Amino acid sequence: MKVIKAKNLKNHIAFATLLIMVLFTDLAFAQKATWIWYPGDYEIWLGNKMQNRRTDRDSFLPVLWKMDSHYVLIEFHKDFNVPAAEEVKLNVEGIYNVKVDGQAFPGYPKSITVPAGHHKLSLKVYCQNHVPSIFVQGKTIVSDDTWLVTFEDKEWIDATGTVSDKSGTTYLNAGSWNFNNILSPPSQFKLPTEPQYAVKSDKAPHSFFLDFGKETFGFVKLHGLKGRGKLHIYYGESKEEALSTDHCETLDELTVSEPHKKDSVMELSKAFRYINVQFDGSISVDSVSMLYEYAPLNERGGFHCSDEEVNKIYDVAKYTLHLATREFFIDGIKRDRWIWSGDAYQSYLMNYYSFFDSPTVSRTMLALRGKDPVTSHINTIMDYTFYWFLGIYDYYQYTGDKTFIKQFYPRMQSLMDYCLGRRNKDGMMVGLPGDWVFIDWADGLSKKGEVSFEQMLFCRSLETMSLCAELNNDPMGAVKYNALAADLKTKIFKYYWNSQQHALVHSRVNGVQTANVTRYANMFGIFFNYFTEQQKQEVKQHVLLNDKIQKITTPYMRFYELEALCAMGEQPYVLKEMKNYWGGMFKLGATSFWEEYDPTKTGADIYAMYGRPFGKSLCHAWGASPIYLLGKYYLGVKPLSPGYQAYIVEPNLGGLQWMEGAIPTPNGAIKLYCSTKQIRISADEGNGILRFKSKTAPVCKQTMVMAKGKNVYEIQMQKGETFVIDYNAI
Amino acid sequence: MKVIKAKNLKNHIAFATLLIMVLFTDLAFAQKATWIWYPGDYEIWLGNKMQNRRTDRDSFLPVLWKMDSHYVLIEFHKDFNVPAAEEVKLNVEGIYNVKVDGQAFPGYPKSITVPAGHHKLSLKVYCQNHVPSIFVQGKTIVSDDTWLVTFEDKEWIDATGTVSDKSGTTYLNAGSWNFNNILSPPSQFKLPTEPQYAVKSDKAPHSFFLDFGKETFGFVKLHGLKGRGKLHIYYGESKEEALSTDHCETLDELTVSEPHKKDSVMELSKAFRYINVQFDGSISVDSVSMLYEYAPLNERGGFHCSDEEVNKIYDVAKYTLHLATREFFIDGIKRDRWIWSGDAYQSYLMNYYSFFDSPTVSRTMLALRGKDPVTSHINTIMDYTFYWFLGIYDYYQYTGDKTFIKQFYPRMQSLMDYCLGRRNKDGMMVGLPGDWVFIDWADGLSKKGEVSFEQMLFCRSLETMSLCAELNNDPMGAVKYNALAADLKTKIFKYYWNSQQHALVHSRVNGVQTANVTRYANMFGIFFNYFTEQQKQEVKQHVLLNDKIQKITTPYMRFYELEALCAMGEQPYVLKEMKNYWGGMFKLGATSFWEEYDPTKTGADIYAMYGRPFGKSLCHAWGASPIYLLGKYYLGVKPLSPGYQAYIVEPNLGGLQWMEGAIPTPNGAIKLYCSTKQIRISADEGNGILRFKSKTAPVCKQTMVMAKGKNVYEIQMQKGETFVIDYNAI
Repeated sequence: MKVIKAKNLKNHIAFATLLIMVLFTDLAFAQKATWIWYPGDYEIWLGNKMQNRRTDRDSFLPVLWKMDSHYVLIEFHKDFNVPAAEEVKLNVEGIYNVKVDGQAFPGYPKSITVPAGHHKLSLKVYCQNHVPSIFVQGKTIVSDDTWLVTFEDKEWIDATGTVSDKSGTTYLNAGSWNFNNILSPPSQFKLPTEPQYAVKSDKAPHSFFLDFGKETFGFVKLHGLKGRGKLHIYYGESKEEALSTDHCETLDELTVSEPHKKDSVMELSKAFRYINVQFDGSISVDSVSMLYEYAPLNERGGFHCSDEEVNKIYDVAKYTLHLATREFFIDGIKRDRWIWSGDAYQSYLMNYYSFFDSPTVSRTMLALRGKDPVTSHINTIMDYTFYWFLGIYDYYQYTGDKTFIKQFYPRMQSLMDYCLGRRNKDGMMVGLPGDWVFIDWADGLSKKGEVSFEQMLFCRSLETMSLCAELNNDPMGAVKYNALAADLKTKIFKYYWNSQQHALVHSRVNGVQTANVTRYANMFGIFFNYFTEQQKQEVKQHVLLNDKIQKITTPYMRFYELEALCAMGEQPYVLKEMKNYWGGMFKLGATSFWEEYDPTKTGADIYAMYGRPFGKSLCHAWGASPIYLLGKYYLGVKPLSPGYQAYIVEPNLGGLQWMEGAIPTPNGAIKLYCSTKQIRISADEGNGILRFKSKTAPVCKQTMVMAKGKNVYEIQMQKGETFVIDYNAI
Repeated sequence: MKVIKAKNLKNHIAFATLLIMVLFTDLAFAQKATWIWYPGDYEIWLGNKMQNRRTDRDSFLPVLWKMDSHYVLIEFHKDFNVPAAEEVKLNVEGIYNVKVDGQAFPGYPKSITVPAGHHKLSLKVYCQNHVPSIFVQGKTIVSDDTWLVTFEDKEWIDATGTVSDKSGTTYLNAGSWNFNNILSPPSQFKLPTEPQYAVKSDKAPHSFFLDFGKETFGFVKLHGLKGRGKLHIYYGESKEEALSTDHCETLDELTVSEPHKKDSVMELSKAFRYINVQFDGSISVDSVSMLYEYAPLNERGGFHCSDEEVNKIYDVAKYTLHLATREFFIDGIKRDRWIWSGDAYQSYLMNYYSFFDSPTVSRTMLALRGKDPVTSHINTIMDYTFYWFLGIYDYYQYTGDKTFIKQFYPRMQSLMDYCLGRRNKDGMMVGLPGDWVFIDWADGLSKKGEVSFEQMLFCRSLETMSLCAELNNDPMGAVKYNALAADLKTKIFKYYWNSQQHALVHSRVNGVQTANVTRYANMFGIFFNYFTEQQKQEVKQHVLLNDKIQKITTPYMRFYELEALCAMGEQPYVLKEMKNYWGGMFKLGATSFWEEYDPTKTGADIYAMYGRPFGKSLCHAWGASPIYLLGKYYLGVKPLSPGYQAYIVEPNLGGLQWMEGAIPTPNGAIKLYCSTKQIRISADEGNGILRFKSKTAPVCKQTMVMAKGKNVYEIQMQKGETFVIDYNAI
């Protein structure tokens, strides 16, 4: 045994660490196999599956637009340099062949031996029911997203004398998620569940009435079900709904014939707080519980402050978002349980300030986009097509994921081509037959002619295309989209800006500016930074803070309204609005945030929407915007370059005494505490700037504080270090 | 009781007939329910299923191009005037809802009651595994192709206050076939089978060697299989192939573990005449037979003549075509078992002169076309895209089916757009990366530059588009395609016609005419009628009958070569060629016609192709062309307007003493006997002209014979009548 001298110890440890790292890397590499598929296909398939789980009073209620399908036949391949012959295990969804250097093995092997040397391993898989997928696990040969895939391999065997020019074939990198177990194929994926029990359960001879204490989601479980007869489960997000057997939005009807006691779990998950179970005949039930179904998200962001109501708003918002984050970002858990692009867009933004679950963002965008040809706007809604582009812009900014942009640039192009093909003679987007111009649920909102709000979103979409074109080495495209965007922006101001009204008007009809001013285009103009500073102030005064302009009643558009105000530094005002509006829902008993909230409504009327007494969704993702507002405009964290390589933190207490929280970044978080006297901040990655206002000169022991203007100071942050700044907040 | 006077009797009979017709119509209407789906979707789904049954020495061998998929979510609806409330039975493939006037029934009803009055019945169906399909059977409410379907219904419920403009939705008529049984859904469809037994069976302790007497197709059945071990079945179209366990193209490997005797049928059908069954271990087999699998076609055409060899050629050709006509027209039954557009195109033509099974034609065209977007030529082959258009032209001419043209015109347009987008600066089609320019299997055939043959097919495709545009009220399209075709035709003659060579040359490379003359473009120029009479004669002399021009060795291109000669009146020459070429295969033991036949090859070499000793398919649809030649150019029957509304019959004995046969028309047949002395002809429908040559004035008791030129005579035929003409054949 060698005695190690003290001065060498460090080196030995370093060497040992290196060794462990090598071993670990090798091990990690060997373990890195994952199920792979044609990118975008699993997302479409799973989206179909999830969205077709909706029922409306026990009738199947699917989406109203085209559902695409996966490619049923896929070729997967990769070239390997194999150091020594190795055994490779295979699992495949579909019927398939496996080839090494073009030579097929007979049958459907579960394991093959690949000899040492340079070899091409390829699999070709046909599967109609679900997505052709493979899992390949050897020592050095593993399936991952470095494999190439195509839906038309044009594999012309040279021996036939055929002209063999495969250069026309497009290969993409394989898609994957986190299916790392050879025995758990993608088609079997299910969200996890765990048992939950009612906080109150009223049992009667032929019924149960249960209260689970708060909004929840999952599968009802009937314990000890026995007998013959009919059993009904009426679900309610409110007590009134569960009691309204004629009008509750969802229900189950079971024909029971169980001679022996048996536990029975409903096939479809539902949203509810209350359930009303009624049965006849000889049926008996011991008890009723549920399996709570949830997306296994990490709580990577957080917010806590001196105001307990705001804390509750943040927590309920996060719970609301978590419930509405499932296989995809859906609108609401009772209904529609569909992926709506405008709703999802807000979920993406809220997600960046909470779970930072990027795969759910990209998965949702892929499911929304579907495949070519484009036959309709996304969800049939013009604005929702544009939000899809905006989502890509943000996705790249927050995650820095260039691969996604690269793989799906052709689908962006074809969707944009669809839009460009639908412009009118003035180059503006108007609603054509079959188009839904949505904007917002608001009484009397005009959708006629060229709506300014739609052109704003269209312009931002073109800017996104220009950015993506640049990223994809398409300089011609970048120039084209840029020119289109610039031209459209000029028109927007020429056609809609009304200096008497100090705002953009709502629309042009037959080429004539209408007199109507609404909040929509004006609030986007602020945080898109399309307005001059002067225009922003005019719009703030004459639109945002003007009670004569039609009010917004959906949390959906409240999101942007409050964002615009925050962007103008109106955090104190917005904090009050937040407490009034979201706090107002608490006063009506909300345990999650609603699709719509009108403070003027009372009684049973508060649950009505779409002409149905319980039509309103009481757990709607777009109700969760405080997560985003508090993260981006109070903690004040924003990426400045893709994936937080550069970012800025501009905390704004907005009247709070103190606040603290974490904002996730791709590989870490930015942690912040801020009171009126001190800021403490640290970040795991990126180059950050902390910018704040102070009445007096601030002090930071760790670094220099730079004065940047009247009462404005900045520090340059270093990743991994904690900075403590003593200051005097304005 | 009223006594009916004689003069009124006729009226009464007419009235009674009318009553019976009404009753019968009612009954027929009530029985007319059939399974329906989105048009084209079942064809694509079934095509995927069928084509993915190919194996190559027990390895799965799928196609090399994109396989499309059906729409997974479909809305079906129809408005009905219901005389009295009726019960309507339902069967659906998929999960679904049923609505009457927009009101959904709960659950998945198997029967509903529709009240009297005007009602809209609609179903919405989701199915990933197979094609969403419905069967609806009431007294007056039945599912059939008058239902409308869409893949995006944009059903915005007015109650939501949503802008509801559905006029952007495209509805098509539902697709159907002949699935008229509510209990037999489309996904369960299988071709029928019947037992067949070997004509010779050699049994040994561990093997069987069977000869089924002729080429056949189906599932091998092992009777009384028992024991443990491996069992192999080696299939052979030739004895040599079945004996070549190392090189036979198809085989099955079974791992047997059967304690008790059991009959076992192979999962996949195969093509063979011989089978070689070998087994080891304790395996025993009592006997081996097969289940012959076949398309249930009607033999609507026929041909018989004074030459027994020609009769045998015709019969074996028809058997060849029958074997290669399955769910679709495939190339060969051993391989590829795929739908190849160029091969299928010939099957369509042969089919019109034999089985006249129109659904197999349209089904094949739909499976070939798949869906948008077009990402490649059909089967990746440029010529095969053009044959697809040519097939539509013929289909309309022979069947008169306008609905098909109407429903799928958009898919024709997008495929043509794909072609137009790939023209070079001179407007010609050249092979781009990823394109396969096939033409024919022929040694040293150049595919470089602008190949004249491809431009010929492209030109005809444009003419087809022009025709279809006219049929679909697209006058702008008709003008556009017409102009493109005319322009291209001019270029063809400008660029390729070489007056020294009296022919079109093979190609232009870098804008320069090559010196090479091949048969391809020249023979098409004749029967496309692109040449002047003078040019035809030149081409006949200098190309078709010129041994110095590279010979054709595939029956595929022999088809067109002999057609061109027949179109020039060379029936006696072609008859000799037919006897030499197809008769030549008989001398080598053919029981069906081959993929390729080169009279100079002998020994085991005759079965080799693609560098494999048994690569050649011995039952290939394109080997069956005598059916077409004998029907169209000997019996001489051709439609002149869509669906045989007008047609011409120009019998040509070509050296035979007599011939007789039937040529099917959409709703009947044209029957013909022709010797050197007499013609007897009758037709079930259409306006026909019989044209023939006679040395002396012919006599027809039934009608007037019109002299039409030197020795040329015509009669006008009346449907349902038999005409007997005595003449003196030239």
